[in-house]
Amino acid sequence: MSPSISPLAPSHVPAMPAVAGVRLATAAAGIRYAGRTDVLLALFTPGTAVAGVFTRSKCPSAPVEWCRAQLKAGKARALVVNSGNANAFTGKSGRAACKLTAAIAAHAADIKPADVFLASTGVIGEPLNAQAFDGVMQGLVANANPGDFLAAAQAIMTTDTFPKVATATAKIGKATVTINGIAKGAGMIAPDMATMLSFVFTDAAISAPALQALLKEQVADTFNAVTIDGDTSTSDTLMIFATGKADGCPRIARAGDPRLKAFKKALHAVLADLSEQIARDGEGARKLVEIVVQGAVSKASARRIALSIANSPLVKTAIAGEDANWGRVVMAVGKAGEPADRDRLSIWFGSIRVAHKGARDPDYDEAEVSALMKQPVIHLKVALGLGKGRDRVLTCDLTKEYVAINGNYRS
Amino acid sequence: MSPSISPLAPSHVPAMPAVAGVRLATAAAGIRYAGRTDVLLALFTPGTAVAGVFTRSKCPSAPVEWCRAQLKAGKARALVVNSGNANAFTGKSGRAACKLTAAIAAHAADIKPADVFLASTGVIGEPLNAQAFDGVMQGLVANANPGDFLAAAQAIMTTDTFPKVATATAKIGKATVTINGIAKGAGMIAPDMATMLSFVFTDAAISAPALQALLKEQVADTFNAVTIDGDTSTSDTLMIFATGKADGCPRIARAGDPRLKAFKKALHAVLADLSEQIARDGEGARKLVEIVVQGAVSKASARRIALSIANSPLVKTAIAGEDANWGRVVMAVGKAGEPADRDRLSIWFGSIRVAHKGARDPDYDEAEVSALMKQPVIHLKVALGLGKGRDRVLTCDLTKEYVAINGNYRS
Repeated sequence: MSPSISPLAPSHVPAMPAVAGVRLATAAAGIRYAGRTDVLLALFTPGTAVAGVFTRSKCPSAPVEWCRAQLKAGKARALVVNSGNANAFTGKSGRAACKLTAAIAAHAADIKPADVFLASTGVIGEPLNAQAFDGVMQGLVANANPGDFLAAAQAIMTTDTFPKVATATAKIGKATVTINGIAKGAGMIAPDMATMLSFVFTDAAISAPALQALLKEQVADTFNAVTIDGDTSTSDTLMIFATGKADGCPRIARAGDPRLKAFKKALHAVLADLSEQIARDGEGARKLVEIVVQGAVSKASARRIALSIANSPLVKTAIAGEDANWGRVVMAVGKAGEPADRDRLSIWFGSIRVAHKGARDPDYDEAEVSALMKQPVIHLKVALGLGKGRDRVLTCDLTKEYVAINGNYRS
Repeated sequence: MSPSISPLAPSHVPAMPAVAGVRLATAAAGIRYAGRTDVLLALFTPGTAVAGVFTRSKCPSAPVEWCRAQLKAGKARALVVNSGNANAFTGKSGRAACKLTAAIAAHAADIKPADVFLASTGVIGEPLNAQAFDGVMQGLVANANPGDFLAAAQAIMTTDTFPKVATATAKIGKATVTINGIAKGAGMIAPDMATMLSFVFTDAAISAPALQALLKEQVADTFNAVTIDGDTSTSDTLMIFATGKADGCPRIARAGDPRLKAFKKALHAVLADLSEQIARDGEGARKLVEIVVQGAVSKASARRIALSIANSPLVKTAIAGEDANWGRVVMAVGKAGEPADRDRLSIWFGSIRVAHKGARDPDYDEAEVSALMKQPVIHLKVALGLGKGRDRVLTCDLTKEYVAINGNYRS
């Protein structure tokens, strides 16, 4: 963990209510870190539906493969997450570690191993000693309670500087349901699915296929619209667990059910909140950067241009240096390979238009834009003038601290 | 310019011979920098053939557009290069500046403006005051002599810490021809054509179409196989000028002419040397990194995987930290989107195999690999075990100095 909390951390941490049907516990298994919790156990009542989206890496971690396989049945009784070791690129021993972890949890909780979901985050390529869970699992099961979501978020942190939680409620029919989410970042974050690990828990009664459809739809403009460094983890995991235990909640089978309208909105708010927190806790980040691209030929084209800007080391270092170097934005638009006409391009930092129709805006005041660049949140807008495609991504600046953190992580 | 010379700078700078038909001069026009030269004029004898490859940016600089247009005639009498201002994203005034620069040079040298080629490097988006060339051009023409290629390389530097020159000779028929090259880096370097600016001068007698074919072929595994930060300049330019003035050199019309065999080899050596120097002078670089990917399904696939590794901030920061963090190499292979089978993957640092068949190599000695990581040149090899596709790219590490240099560049 980094020594100091990101200056972009939210000033307010919401009180996290219980979610009916979910019990949580954390423990220190000594996987890698000393003096902190590093295992989270979540237990779910029978009938809990589950859905998940995972990294598109061609070299996924063993827990990702485990979850993909178990997800087909659509039901969950437990989730075990550890930090400190990603159990990725661990070959046969990685698969064995998953099997053993699930067996240990299933035995302790008196459930089936196939109903146990797993996630691991931390260093890649080191064998995970799953036996370490054996010493703590009985205690986790015994201590599991409706619980402390903030403690759960803390247990799954690696280089995160603050725990990430979000909560919302929504009506489904006459029932009020709760949606709680936790997440961890903070490097190796790029859109190509979720970002490292995030888990959402709700007492709504929604079928697994409907949850899967919702998640797939909503990840696109939340977690997949956040990039820290363009690097995609082997372990990216976003899962949702729905216990169906909210009082009077009707059972929803289809994602298209109109009764889900408020739920969808609330779920989107939770995912957007968590994913923004990940950008706010990018390794070494000192600036949160929102990039809006409009006037592109399509939304997909706008996304690719926005990501080209968001992942450009030259743009990110300029922002770290509080320099409104819009020339580098032009460069990043140009290298994206998407339709762009230099002579129609306009660029804004905040509300100040710095470039217009292919040249510097003669009216902009460098002192004014310099003052704006000192703010912790930077809004960058690019208008291409070609069509109606618009998209938005979040990123952070690239600082010396990012280099320091990542030059020292493994050793 | 950076205060200190890259520790990766070549220890030996070759003596650069004259090239028959080429005269050079440099001057200080005060475009941006004080107390240094910032304009290069190269003059060519009549009959000089020219070819060039340029950035694929959708927002190219005004000089790139100028050169593309003039290149169709295939002949050149002069080249004017300035550092300090890229004349990119300068709209109508950028086009006017090109026209004026060519007119000033043409007038001073008594040639046609259409035979003047232009390149500019430096900050983007600031109008280029081409009038500044008026004060120095007569002097440049008067002083032009067979000259000092090192001084030419110095005049085109921006954040480069050392001038980049290379030279070779080759036989064409019974004639010995010389090939001299100069280049400048050092950030905003990514393959998508040449890397910033490079100019090659030869006294061989080769037609413009043949030069163009040679350049296109040879750029792929030289300049386009180098990446510093994945960012592609609006100004990338690689041009070759062939005066035909070598004693007794036969005139070569086609790139496929067997008499070009030795010339091709020598040209490749010059381009490879210059492009490696660019990697060695990547902004803030402390390590030169060679990445070889083999066993891919094709060369193109190997290239994409090698670039995914080379552009990964997490891989680059680990190397800066002298950490053989091969887990991040796995991550970068996985995110490339190319065919890869985790369980067939092997990875070497130098001659030490650190990962084998999808897991850590049990035999490798961390102390031994740590010692290797302290070297200035790091050889990283990935074997995919899928096919015969192989490729190689060069990059450098990502250091705090890169962030510092790029956070301060414009202001």
